[in-house]
Order: sequence, then structure tokens, then C-alpha cells
Amino acid sequence: MARISERINGIAGSPIRKLTPLADAAKARGVAVYHLNIGQPDIRTPQAGLDALKDIRRTVLEYSPSQGFLSLREKISSYYAGYGMRYSPDEIIITTGGSEAVLFSFLTCLDPGDEIITTDPTYANYIAFAAAAGVKVRTVLTRIEDNFALPEAEEFEKLISPSTKAILICNPNNPSGSLYSPDEMRRLADIVRRHDLFLLSDEVYREFIYGDACYMSAGHLDGIGGNVVILDSFSKRYSECGIRIGAVVTRNRAVLEGVLKLCQARLSPPLLGQIVAEASCSAGREYLDPVIKEYDRRRKVLVEGLNSIPGVVASVPSGAFYAIAKLPVDDADKFCAWCLSDFEYEGETVMMAPASGFYFTQGAGRSEVRLAYVLEEKSLERAVFLLSKALEKYRAL
Amino acid sequence: MARISERINGIAGSPIRKLTPLADAAKARGVAVYHLNIGQPDIRTPQAGLDALKDIRRTVLEYSPSQGFLSLREKISSYYAGYGMRYSPDEIIITTGGSEAVLFSFLTCLDPGDEIITTDPTYANYIAFAAAAGVKVRTVLTRIEDNFALPEAEEFEKLISPSTKAILICNPNNPSGSLYSPDEMRRLADIVRRHDLFLLSDEVYREFIYGDACYMSAGHLDGIGGNVVILDSFSKRYSECGIRIGAVVTRNRAVLEGVLKLCQARLSPPLLGQIVAEASCSAGREYLDPVIKEYDRRRKVLVEGLNSIPGVVASVPSGAFYAIAKLPVDDADKFCAWCLSDFEYEGETVMMAPASGFYFTQGAGRSEVRLAYVLEEKSLERAVFLLSKALEKYRAL
Repeated sequence: MARISERINGIAGSPIRKLTPLADAAKARGVAVYHLNIGQPDIRTPQAGLDALKDIRRTVLEYSPSQGFLSLREKISSYYAGYGMRYSPDEIIITTGGSEAVLFSFLTCLDPGDEIITTDPTYANYIAFAAAAGVKVRTVLTRIEDNFALPEAEEFEKLISPSTKAILICNPNNPSGSLYSPDEMRRLADIVRRHDLFLLSDEVYREFIYGDACYMSAGHLDGIGGNVVILDSFSKRYSECGIRIGAVVTRNRAVLEGVLKLCQARLSPPLLGQIVAEASCSAGREYLDPVIKEYDRRRKVLVEGLNSIPGVVASVPSGAFYAIAKLPVDDADKFCAWCLSDFEYEGETVMMAPASGFYFTQGAGRSEVRLAYVLEEKSLERAVFLLSKALEKYRAL
Repeated sequence: MARISERINGIAGSPIRKLTPLADAAKARGVAVYHLNIGQPDIRTPQAGLDALKDIRRTVLEYSPSQGFLSLREKISSYYAGYGMRYSPDEIIITTGGSEAVLFSFLTCLDPGDEIITTDPTYANYIAFAAAAGVKVRTVLTRIEDNFALPEAEEFEKLISPSTKAILICNPNNPSGSLYSPDEMRRLADIVRRHDLFLLSDEVYREFIYGDACYMSAGHLDGIGGNVVILDSFSKRYSECGIRIGAVVTRNRAVLEGVLKLCQARLSPPLLGQIVAEASCSAGREYLDPVIKEYDRRRKVLVEGLNSIPGVVASVPSGAFYAIAKLPVDDADKFCAWCLSDFEYEGETVMMAPASGFYFTQGAGRSEVRLAYVLEEKSLERAVFLLSKALEKYRAL
């Protein structure tokens, strides 16, 4: 029988997905599972977005322009202006979720065999898309002890070769929850300028910043406008992950033309999602501010709860809605599976994502888990309590 | 400034898109343009699909499963059963339009440098996706004189090398409108079996078959079930191109697992589109039959009209909603542009797609155009009349 490609065989299945059958089995046994493993917010989609669906009068759900509706691109342009970044509508291309923005920017900016540098841990799907695009991934290690801060310039420069074409960051970061400081961002800009690399900046968690952390987008960096490609999405901002609307935002004309060729090949981004996204833009700060406050409260509950468990060390996230915790176990993959297959306390247990799936370096982060704080405070408190009980029992085995 | 990839530079812009500014300019001058160039049906989306949108009660537009909703896959499974093909829901993966089905099946079935054989002319976006995937395209020429029938087995076998991994067909065919006979399909099956190739079969126009033409899907072929990968879409069937819902359908477990890895990387297919697609399935034959009859009438109007113009030879399409016509001009690219830039008759003109954009072989099809019969009969008659007037004037230049 005809054999599939090596490039696909090289993509590892996510460890979260390996846990799914165990979670399903636990539920089938009547055990309630607290999901700290997924990045699906429980927050309502803006009412304006939901209303826009009901208001659709179209009788033919037809193709939209390959680069997305101009009216939506104008809204995004205004949104960026609100952050002090000037991107005209023709410097914005609508993609099918942030995912397509990642894949199409890889395909456009990098040839097979080219190298891209990103942080470790990193968003696992970057690695899958890099494999699909034939791009080689190199990583700079970030550490829970440093709250996953960006390493010094030398760490990046050690990896730069003639094949290096881009640096890829996720800021605020999934999975670590770190937010890069203006100093860190300027340090990156220097490297990018010196080596004339692309800076691919995934900023889909831009709104999710806590405390007095100071935000700087790659779009704010001076003098490297032609190198910066921002990858954006409506999914997290407006809790509408299912509409699959994202964007590539850049001043680099060649990148815009290249991404547009791929967009033309796939004909058009989702029509209905664009309608919801455009309406959601009217939600603004009165929608977002309470959402951010809610996540901030959850963040405190989670991090304080985790750090009060003996032997557990949690990172303090400044952004996104994830934290990484180091657990007093040798193998978090096994522990997370055990929580679902062998543990319950008063009929309940907890599902977490082993951090190993986010590390490119083999064996790194073996004791770590990623936790998404997308549950209400009460549920988060209970989930942390269940984790403490699970650790107690597991360590006594 | 950082340079984009060679693979993207290798993708040609579509000649249709080069004509768009000319059409816009014509409209700005007050000239009415009859669009024979695009595959956007003017047919209504099924009411059940439109109603489903209004009935959405969700307040969080969240991710759906990476492989698509089970309920939708069950509907598709039943739909295939209606064609005498047994595909279980877990042999069906929902994609973001047929386009994603094409790209993900290329990435899954072929490694960079592998070769795929398709017909010439072919759907232009295959070539763009092949370039993105690093896959080499080889083509067997089909001819207007033969109504674009599939060539003899030898024509395929001449091209088969150790790098050949797949044959790709579009049946019914875009751009030629040809439908492959059961004999032609069995001939393909023999080649696929002998050389253990994948048979990627794009069947998005499956419903659009005219006259007494006999339809055979790649899924009907005996003994090569593990080699067949069907690429499907709701876009044309239910005139809902904008919802971006397609599918990969195959019995090959490795292909399913490979495609699923890519689907997991891009998280989920469009939520709203899946809701519309699932509801549209209830439309059935009472929706489709009048649609097919309507296209059949248009087909006759177009083909008879074209063949009545001196010097014009049109293919007789048995499927899809396209025809290719050979015009008495040396360069159809120039003529199509001239129709928009320099011609009008009583304030009207016609826009066609030069066939050169669908030919992989340089210089092939120079005198040909592709015409989509997605306009009402009266408009089609007028468009054909305008074409005859344009040819008259052009040849007198």
C-alpha cells in the first residue's frame, strides 16, 4: 500500500491528545474532570458578534475576497492604531485562524531546509507546521527559574547560521505565560536587524496582560518594519476560537504578496467568521476590561494555590492564560495520565497538559505541566486542591 | 531586507486575477461586465442551511473537534452510502474547504521532491499547493478535440518514475467540464494498483452531471481502497462556497492519521460552517435536482451559442459547470484583456478566464478560454452574443 510522507511521520502527536481517551474513560466511570489542559476560554463571545449571525440576510453564502473583507481589514487597522501601530488595510491579510497565519508565513518566509529560532518551551503546533513546511527548528531554552524570560542575545546568536531566516516568538507566551519586556523586545530587534532576519511575532494573547506589566508589540519596534510579521487572531481576544479568523500583519510587500498567493490558492477565509469578527470589534474595552480582570483573579488563585502545595513551583504569568508548574514528580506525562486513570478524590480529578509536549529539546520540562486558567475561581480552587491530593497519593505509591 | 522563499516566488499569479483591475476599470467607465470567469454559483444556499445560522443558541463560539463534528461526519457517511460507497464517520475528516483537503493530502501523501501526475489543463490551485508542498507536478495532456478525455494508460506510464507517488484527478473536471467514464476510471485504477500510487480524486462537482453520463467515483473502484483519497467540499454542491467546509475521505488509516495531525495543528475547522453544512445535508435531491436541471439548460445555451460563432469550438461538458472554448485568436490572454480594456457593445462586455492559467505545459491552450455557466440563461445568451461581437471586432483590428 502506498506510503505516507516522512514529513508527516516526523510530527509527534500531542501528549494532551494521548490523554483524551483516559479522560473519556474517567468520565465514563462517573468521575468529574476539571480541565486545566485546554486553551478554550469559557468567556462569552461579544453579544454584537452573536447578533451579527442572526442578522445575516444573505441567501448565497458565497466566497469572500482572498485577502478578506476590506471592511474587516479597516476595523483591524483601527484596532492597531489604538495600540499606536499604523498598519493600513492593505498591510493586513485575513487568514483562517491564527493557525493559517503561522503556516502561510512559514511557507512564505522560509524555504525547505531554512532554519527558524524560537523559544523552548514553545507552542507545539509551530513544530508541526515547521515540519509541514520543511523548516528546521532551533530553540533557545527559557527556564521556569527565570519566569521564562527571553535569553540573552548570545543565546540566539550561537544558533544563527547562513540558513537562519527567522526568529519566531509568541508574546504574551503560550505555554509559559511570560510577557517580554520592552528591553527584551529591543534586544530581539537588534538581533533581527544585525542578521536581517524575519521576526515572526505571534501576538494572539495581546489583550491578556496582568498587573503593571508593560506591553510592547513587535510592531512597536523601530527600524525593522520590513522584517516584522505579526500573526494575529480573534480567537482568544473575543472568545470566538470557532470562527477561525486570524490575520497576517506586515509592512513587507513581498511577504504580503507571497501570503496572498497562498490565500488565493485556498480561495477565501470563512465568510461567516468574518462577519462575526467584524461585529465583535465594536465590543472594545467595555467587553475586554472585565474579561482581563476575571483572568487576573483566576491567575492569582491558580498561582497562589499551586505555590502553596509542598514541592510545587509555579511560574508567575504576566500574560496569556497559562502557567507552567514544576511538580515533585519525575515524569509529568505519567503523572498526568495517572490522575485520569488511577486517581479520584470524592469522585473528581484534574486534567493537565504535560509540558513535555511544548519542549522541542528532548527530555526538557519532564517534571512540568501547563495549566490553563480558563475555569471560574471556585473550580480553579477545587482543581488545585485535587492536584495537591493527587500529588500526596502519587508520592506515597 | 529579509527575502521571501523561492517556493513562493515559483507560484504564478492567476491570469484571472490579472484581469480583475481591467474589469474594475471597465465598470468604473459604466460598462456592464458579464462574468463567465468565476466558479461562484448564483444558486441559493439551501434554506435549511440559512435557517441553521439563525437558530444558533451558543454563547461561546468555541473550537470544534479537529476532525470535525461527529454528527456532520455521520451525515457525510450517509451521503456516501447514497452513492453506494461505504465510508464510516472515522474515515472522514472535515477540512476548511476542499482547498485544505488538497493541501493536507499533498503534505500527507508526498514528500518534497516527490512527483504527482495530473491532467493538463488542471485546476490552477493544485499547482500552487504543490509548490507550497515542494511536490513536483507532471502532466498528461488532454485535448479539446477529444473533449478532454483521459489519455491512454501509456501516457501516464511514460511519466512514472520512482519519485511518482500519486495521480491527481478532478472528476467532474474543473476547468474542462469532462467526466471520466467507468472505463477511464478502471484504467486509472489499474495504473494505481500496478505502481502502488495514491489516487487523489477531487470530486467536489460530483452532483453536477448532465445528460446520460454515467458517474463513477474513485470510491467505487475495486481493490484499491487503501490508495484512494477523495477530496470533497460542500461549496458547489449546496452553493455555500463561503462556509469553507470540505473533507478528506479515505480508508487508508495512515493517511487519516497524517491528515489528522495537520488538522490538530490548525486546531479546528470552522464551527459555523459545519453547522450550516450539516443542516444543508437535509436539502437532498429536492434541492439538487432543479439546480442540476438549471445548469443543464445553461450548459446547452452556452455550448450551442459558442459553437454557432464562426471559428469557435467549444468542448461539450458532461459535468461541473465549466466549458473550454477554442477561439479564433492567437493569444486568449490578450483577447480577454482587450474585451475588458478596449471593447464594449451597447455598454456591455464579457469577462472570461484565459485557459493558459489552467495549463501546466508552457504555451498550451493559448487560444482557449474557460467559461463558467453560472449565469441565468438570458444573461448567458447575451454574454455569448457579446463574445461574438468582440471576436468580430478583434479580428478586424
